[in-house]
Amino acid sequence: REWHMSQQSLREKTSIIIFGTHTRAGQLFDIALIYAILLSVAAIMLDSVAWIHDSYGTLLYALEWFFTVLFTLEYFTRIYCTNERRKYIFSFYGLVDLFSIVPTYLALVVTGANYLLMIRLLRVLRIFRVLKLARYSLEANLLLRSLYMSRRKILVFFCVVLVLSTIFGCLMFAVEGPEHGFDNIPLSIYWTIVTITTVGYGDIIPQTVMGQFIASAVMLTGYSIIAVPTGIITAEMASELQRKKATFTCNSCHHAGHDNDALHCKWCGAQLHSGA
Amino acid sequence: REWHMSQQSLREKTSIIIFGTHTRAGQLFDIALIYAILLSVAAIMLDSVAWIHDSYGTLLYALEWFFTVLFTLEYFTRIYCTNERRKYIFSFYGLVDLFSIVPTYLALVVTGANYLLMIRLLRVLRIFRVLKLARYSLEANLLLRSLYMSRRKILVFFCVVLVLSTIFGCLMFAVEGPEHGFDNIPLSIYWTIVTITTVGYGDIIPQTVMGQFIASAVMLTGYSIIAVPTGIITAEMASELQRKKATFTCNSCHHAGHDNDALHCKWCGAQLHSGA
Amino acid sequence: REWHMSQQSLREKTSIIIFGTHTRAGQLFDIALIYAILLSVAAIMLDSVAWIHDSYGTLLYALEWFFTVLFTLEYFTRIYCTNERRKYIFSFYGLVDLFSIVPTYLALVVTGANYLLMIRLLRVLRIFRVLKLARYSLEANLLLRSLYMSRRKILVFFCVVLVLSTIFGCLMFAVEGPEHGFDNIPLSIYWTIVTITTVGYGDIIPQTVMGQFIASAVMLTGYSIIAVPTGIITAEMASELQRKKATFTCNSCHHAGHDNDALHCKWCGAQLHSGA
Amino acid sequence: REWHMSQQSLREKTSIIIFGTHTRAGQLFDIALIYAILLSVAAIMLDSVAWIHDSYGTLLYALEWFFTVLFTLEYFTRIYCTNERRKYIFSFYGLVDLFSIVPTYLALVVTGANYLLMIRLLRVLRIFRVLKLARYSLEANLLLRSLYMSRRKILVFFCVVLVLSTIFGCLMFAVEGPEHGFDNIPLSIYWTIVTITTVGYGDIIPQTVMGQFIASAVMLTGYSIIAVPTGIITAEMASELQRKKATFTCNSCHHAGHDNDALHCKWCGAQLHSGA
Repeated sequence: REWHMSQQSLREKTSIIIFGTHTRAGQLFDIALIYAILLSVAAIMLDSVAWIHDSYGTLLYALEWFFTVLFTLEYFTRIYCTNERRKYIFSFYGLVDLFSIVPTYLALVVTGANYLLMIRLLRVLRIFRVLKLARYSLEANLLLRSLYMSRRKILVFFCVVLVLSTIFGCLMFAVEGPEHGFDNIPLSIYWTIVTITTVGYGDIIPQTVMGQFIASAVMLTGYSIIAVPTGIITAEMASELQRKKATFTCNSCHHAGHDNDALHCKWCGAQLHSGA
Repeated sequence: REWHMSQQSLREKTSIIIFGTHTRAGQLFDIALIYAILLSVAAIMLDSVAWIHDSYGTLLYALEWFFTVLFTLEYFTRIYCTNERRKYIFSFYGLVDLFSIVPTYLALVVTGANYLLMIRLLRVLRIFRVLKLARYSLEANLLLRSLYMSRRKILVFFCVVLVLSTIFGCLMFAVEGPEHGFDNIPLSIYWTIVTITTVGYGDIIPQTVMGQFIASAVMLTGYSIIAVPTGIITAEMASELQRKKATFTCNSCHHAGHDNDALHCKWCGAQLHSGA
Repeated sequence: REWHMSQQSLREKTSIIIFGTHTRAGQLFDIALIYAILLSVAAIMLDSVAWIHDSYGTLLYALEWFFTVLFTLEYFTRIYCTNERRKYIFSFYGLVDLFSIVPTYLALVVTGANYLLMIRLLRVLRIFRVLKLARYSLEANLLLRSLYMSRRKILVFFCVVLVLSTIFGCLMFAVEGPEHGFDNIPLSIYWTIVTITTVGYGDIIPQTVMGQFIASAVMLTGYSIIAVPTGIITAEMASELQRKKATFTCNSCHHAGHDNDALHCKWCGAQLHSGA
Repeated sequence: REWHMSQQSLREKTSIIIFGTHTRAGQLFDIALIYAILLSVAAIMLDSVAWIHDSYGTLLYALEWFFTVLFTLEYFTRIYCTNERRKYIFSFYGLVDLFSIVPTYLALVVTGANYLLMIRLLRVLRIFRVLKLARYSLEANLLLRSLYMSRRKILVFFCVVLVLSTIFGCLMFAVEGPEHGFDNIPLSIYWTIVTITTVGYGDIIPQTVMGQFIASAVMLTGYSIIAVPTGIITAEMASELQRKKATFTCNSCHHAGHDNDALHCKWCGAQLHSGA
């Protein structure tokens, strides 16, 4: 019985270290984990460079397996420790943890599968949780809220861009044709996206006067409509900032409209306590 | 007489299915139509790829005719069903419906005419009507209203960009000349548009020091004035959003300033009914 | 005496036609003038295309002289008619009128001078005066006022961009050097401007790992700081729009805050008379 | 004693000329200094051009040493004159002054070190202090404050862009691979940054259909998320402008809301004294 209890308490202690970020040990564990993730990602990156692969390939391969085994152990410890197994396994972090170790095993069967290990980078998102970056996550929330509020407008905008790209792409295919590099309609649409987003690789270029005229129209269109998503997001962000200011009132005089970094009420001087 | 009446009622029923979106049948018809349009557009796209054309050309040609005949039948059924024939024929949708079938027949006489079939894509705009995307069309309205309010400013801006492009184009032609690829003034203007919109293909590049100096001026101009349409549209969009909030009041306490996605008044808690 | 008076009145009548835009004749004169300007500009453009020059060179040369003689006559008539000669000659329009005819005569002595004829395009700015585009010039005024209000911020921004470009340019010259196309510091600065404005011709590209790393920094810098002029102009434009709305009050109830296109007061319903 | 006093007063006088900008002599000294800095920077730039180096290399080398000796003398005079030596030496300007002369001496030992002389450009920042550009530095302050207020949001945004670039880079490496120019993951990440920032050199381009599809996604992502920093900075800048207007009140009638360039109160007509 005593052994059982000590095992119970060991499980709880481990759970606090692995999942929690309140204790010193929990923080150190998470920081160590993030370094391990970044190191393992860097190892995969370096292994893709030919001369590094030739010189240190075996070492990097060993490192990959070392980190994979480490993360596998960590994954099963997490499953063992948690009280809500099903919830963890199917949570966002749980799935990312799983997909971060599977590719190495998969690569034994399918070649090239280990590039999927890049999914490990998503684990770094824990950094927000670890470092208690309340400020940063507030700012990130503001960004996400603005994006969420404008999701429909952005979607409408994207549909318009895609329809425009398709129509312009067909036009260019009809005008320039395969003899000038516009081999088929999908490729012409690709060219239109390259042009409308003002990237402009220059691998396919219009060569007839008519084609250059249409291309100019595409560029000016792209140059102008980039203003639309900017307008959408800016307007939402400004209204988010205003909302934040408007709803944050002083406790003693009940006046609102304080700046985000104000510590005292600018009317009565009482100390402000963030209510957000 | 009875036969006449049943024909009358058949016409009305068909009209409800084809034009209406209130009945289940009407919705299914429109959704099927959209899939047919997307499929027919995809068929034309795929047919433009050389190796697909070689292998499946006959099938795709058959598909094109199948869809064209289908849309032709649909077009004449619409004309037959509607009570306001002239109005439909000359409406935006009526003209798009017509131009979506003509090119296939035209291609029998003129080669290449079938690329005009891309106009079919415009028929997909019906999707807004079909899916009762009230929310989406509200957002689209906001975008369109902002664009409409700023149409004059945008036009003034475009004139300025075109005049600037012409003047810079002439300058570059004078400085670089045909020996560096700036063959004539229209081509130089094309280059200026490529540069001022920051697309930068790199097919024509300044090679003299003076030319590179002017090119830098063109780039910095383009990089800065892109701020102008953004400013225009953002300012309009922000004022549209404010107008919407300022005029949208609660029915019970008559307080305004509710968020766009609010369901209850934030002062008295009464349910809000969108008045826009 | 009578002949003198009639001459006097002829001068006044001509003055009204040439300078004024209130009479029907005055309007027609200005519209004809604008067409003449656009035609003469188009003639110069077309003459720069090699095959058009070979086929129609003589005709276009004749056209250039025809328009130049026409504009010369117009210029001297303007000087003859106006009551404030000195003021007209040194006004913006007077100088543009002069510089629009000089290059053709200059081209008799200096070859290539006739490209300066593009300055004629500036004469088209009269279009704003001619068509009584009150609305358009109001919008243009808003744009200009915003730009004027933000001129200092824009200048500060430009200095920062130029200093950044110089420093990054030197860095790239030191890192990549002449063997990778970065021949000298001015060329490296040109490359930096091409990159920081996201134009990216691709004629000069970094080839060392260190160079690509710095180039990435330059791109991300350019990608981010483009937000600054946009922010400046948008903020000014929004405050201009607000000012316009805030200062425009109803005459009967003295409430402000009407939309720009409102015809009636939205509180008391009285008709609004634009005070701007 | 008298000699000592006169030396004392000489040191003080020199200090006023070198550090101060209130006296005529102090202003002239600083303006001369800025011209010297710009000249020395221009000399280094020109020396990097091969044919100028061949023809005037000795002259430019002499100039470099002349300016370096001049700035060295100035540096030691500053140290001698100031009352707070330690403070000056470790201040921003003090360090820039030091690093502006070191590279020339260093270049005697290490070749190529003289490119670091570009750091001299930073000395030009004194121009803000010299010309008493109160207006300009107010505007610069507004820009800096906006950037400072949005620093966290910008950082979050940059992390997102870098993570996106890494993931897209790996994807492209897996899809296109070394045979299409995507030699290794770091190079693929470089390509992704080139594309996501819409620079688009065109030295590495996707060649498979799948690669072009992913590239399109990258471009559209980059084209859209450029709206985010713009939104951030614009919203901050607008709220800065509003804050400034709201807090800037007239001394006689205590009304706020004056424009930035207003000289008189627009309600009572009293002269305004900037309180910021």
